Amino acid sequence: MHYRAITSILGILILILSFFLLLFYFIALLIYPEEGQSGAFLYSFLITFGIGMLLFLSIRKFSEDDVSYREGFVIVGLSWITIAFFGALPAYISGNIPSFADAYFESMSGFTTTGASILTDIEALGKSVILWRSFTHWLGGMGFIVLSLAILPALGVGGMQLYAAEVPGPTPEKLVPRVGQTARILYMVYIIMSIAQILALYMAGMNLFESLCHTFGSMGTGGFSPLNKSIGQYAFQGHSSALIFEQIIIVFMFLAGANFSLHYRAFKGNWKAYFQDPEFKFYLFIIVFSVLSIAVDLLRNSVYESWAESIRHSSFTVVSIITTTGYATEDFDLWPVSSRFFLVILMFIGASAGSTGGGIKILRIMTLMKQAIVELKHVIHPKRVYVIRFGRNYISREVLASMNMFVLLFMIVYVAAILILSATGYDMATISTMVVACFSNVGPGLSLVGPTHNFGFLPDYAKWILSYLMVLGRLEILPIIVLSLPGTWTK
Amino acid sequence: MHYRAITSILGILILILSFFLLLFYFIALLIYPEEGQSGAFLYSFLITFGIGMLLFLSIRKFSEDDVSYREGFVIVGLSWITIAFFGALPAYISGNIPSFADAYFESMSGFTTTGASILTDIEALGKSVILWRSFTHWLGGMGFIVLSLAILPALGVGGMQLYAAEVPGPTPEKLVPRVGQTARILYMVYIIMSIAQILALYMAGMNLFESLCHTFGSMGTGGFSPLNKSIGQYAFQGHSSALIFEQIIIVFMFLAGANFSLHYRAFKGNWKAYFQDPEFKFYLFIIVFSVLSIAVDLLRNSVYESWAESIRHSSFTVVSIITTTGYATEDFDLWPVSSRFFLVILMFIGASAGSTGGGIKILRIMTLMKQAIVELKHVIHPKRVYVIRFGRNYISREVLASMNMFVLLFMIVYVAAILILSATGYDMATISTMVVACFSNVGPGLSLVGPTHNFGFLPDYAKWILSYLMVLGRLEILPIIVLSLPGTWTK
Repeated sequence: MHYRAITSILGILILILSFFLLLFYFIALLIYPEEGQSGAFLYSFLITFGIGMLLFLSIRKFSEDDVSYREGFVIVGLSWITIAFFGALPAYISGNIPSFADAYFESMSGFTTTGASILTDIEALGKSVILWRSFTHWLGGMGFIVLSLAILPALGVGGMQLYAAEVPGPTPEKLVPRVGQTARILYMVYIIMSIAQILALYMAGMNLFESLCHTFGSMGTGGFSPLNKSIGQYAFQGHSSALIFEQIIIVFMFLAGANFSLHYRAFKGNWKAYFQDPEFKFYLFIIVFSVLSIAVDLLRNSVYESWAESIRHSSFTVVSIITTTGYATEDFDLWPVSSRFFLVILMFIGASAGSTGGGIKILRIMTLMKQAIVELKHVIHPKRVYVIRFGRNYISREVLASMNMFVLLFMIVYVAAILILSATGYDMATISTMVVACFSNVGPGLSLVGPTHNFGFLPDYAKWILSYLMVLGRLEILPIIVLSLPGTWTK
Repeated sequence: MHYRAITSILGILILILSFFLLLFYFIALLIYPEEGQSGAFLYSFLITFGIGMLLFLSIRKFSEDDVSYREGFVIVGLSWITIAFFGALPAYISGNIPSFADAYFESMSGFTTTGASILTDIEALGKSVILWRSFTHWLGGMGFIVLSLAILPALGVGGMQLYAAEVPGPTPEKLVPRVGQTARILYMVYIIMSIAQILALYMAGMNLFESLCHTFGSMGTGGFSPLNKSIGQYAFQGHSSALIFEQIIIVFMFLAGANFSLHYRAFKGNWKAYFQDPEFKFYLFIIVFSVLSIAVDLLRNSVYESWAESIRHSSFTVVSIITTTGYATEDFDLWPVSSRFFLVILMFIGASAGSTGGGIKILRIMTLMKQAIVELKHVIHPKRVYVIRFGRNYISREVLASMNMFVLLFMIVYVAAILILSATGYDMATISTMVVACFSNVGPGLSLVGPTHNFGFLPDYAKWILSYLMVLGRLEILPIIVLSLPGTWTK
């Protein structure tokens, strides 16, 4: 283990974060001047900058060879845990969230784009703090380390290792040979799409502040809203553009849940890329199938009067859940049991590989299903040789084995977390869905953690465990797990 | 597909079953002469014998080559579905169970050693029918086809294919080179242990009828009891030997949940075999760990007053659930949520490979955990080569892949079954535990299908689906799934 490389890269990452805190100091000072808010950002900046500087000054020369996959995992794991810590400072210091366990939970929920909140009255917070809270979604969505790689080519030492450890999905794709360039392209696409969403919402009649927050929440597939009733608040208050807002948000959640390399190809003019990609097609298929199934279920059980209403809420909820965003227009905890089970399964599945969403990922689910079919064919025709293909690519046995292993690791973590958190003594639906909602970075679950509730009532130890689960899910287990293995810290 | 081989072997299997029905005709006539019972067995025998004969007379010569793994799967799958049908006749014809969906559910639950019942008042049934109901556990536990292979060496044509398709576990072990001989050895061990349990219960003061039923239920890891309150009835009625009965049943459930090849080695004098077997050690470890964890949880939540009471009920329930027997001394649905989650997880895990129990099997769970550890080690030391070992044996990549696939197929079936059965509209705990309770062949679940309830209230379509799930679980998916694939029925 090369500690020098770890501490200095960690220092740089913390310094980058501190500049965002400085930016928010000016926002709090100039744009949303409320008492006590700007000071909190200033103090947060100073603490973060100071600690980052301390680690940065300890920098010594290290070579590319010093950052292997092991170091890559450790740096990514450590940086996420510490960045959530510094990101929690503004809300804590300003007194908006008086408990540090709560502030850390909220910050981790932001960066990991989970969107699970401990807040009951969000609107009571300072505006700059609300904006920061939503902005953490945007930073964490595409990845804070990917951003750092885009800004600082110097970090390119070991860049591929860092990139591979942060970008979700079984096979992180480099769009161009150089990692820094790939990171810049991804962020460019991300920024253009974000600007498009902000403009769309703003032109449809949403105010700028809410447009910004909801864009950060949908593009990062996070789910934090500045409104107490989430997106449902517009319809509740009879806003004339409520339906349009919902539809804009559906579109951008959907895009954020797709692989960003497809968006890049589309920007370059290759629109066909979407429909040549098997994962994208399956992603679309699952959504259409789920929207229709749930709409039928809602109508059959007379939850809504009309087809239009059923489709409206079914489509928003399905896209919000499968992309692991977690915005809500309706309390789906009141829906029939089959719809609720459907949604829980979508929470497990999650979004596409290379998207900003969480969960097991559609690519892995597809591969599993293909393998299951091959296994069955093999029983009927044992002598034939079958291979698993994706579009034109064959998938090797090694990749298959490690993909399956991921799904099984996911299950092991899920079961272990349920067992540990069952000590809280809540009902089974609460415990099992709060685990999947945090681990898949969705946000709301069912029962006591349903869309009209929040996580504030939980004991502190449960909040810490759930914070851990969020980052475990966001980084797809390994970078966090290796931190706690003794073998990691030996030469 | 070689239809001749299939129909004639199926005919032989049905004929063998008919002789057991004939035996029960005499039992109903001579030992438990209650009105209308013996006639039902006679009619059942005649129907079964007639149809079996019809298929048997269609026999033509077929060679060893005609029975490949595909035919083996088809024969095993079809025979279980039809044998449950004939096994349902006595209860149906005698009027003890007036609905055929109910009678089939009860029969499939018997043969698959699930032990889920539709009956509210078991004691109202005719004694010979109750005994037959329990006897189906015994036949299904070690396997009806294994029994047939033991009786009829002529069936040895394709015997290995049939054996592999029926015996649970990833790598069915042949104790001796010849399959017929292996089957005879297994049944010998099974019979000796069953006689031991009957004697133990009888000498401890249980009447012969109940000793027989409870032995069939524990050795087959089934769970049908002739008593309405299951094993708990003895303590409830203040029977002086209640505790001893429980302990005897714990011991034999435990043995039935272990790999029978170990018992065979022990019979041959090699007692050390148990503690040289990694799966057996882990089986023991899970049980001890679960018993203690649940006992602590029960005591902490003041469910029972004393350590002794907590251990008593925790140990009975844990052994009953992990072996997938399903006998109950207490209503564990009233236990704290952490204990209930623990039990549900044990339902998934199930018993050892090569035992009479169901579930995913401990061997597969162990292999998964070993792979997870290797995967983590690999992250830290990517250049080292790791292998998965069991005792002295290495496990090849192919075997690992197919073991993982089984677990994933199990999960896919579980999820699909929950989605389908959520149409019943019951609560989430009922639906999800009734699926795992049937699929893992446990019997009782939680909530509406908890240990003090039964499956009788379900709509017929749910009973058919659950019957299907039971046999899917008992035969470990493939033999049943291949029946519904179009590719199976083409040349």
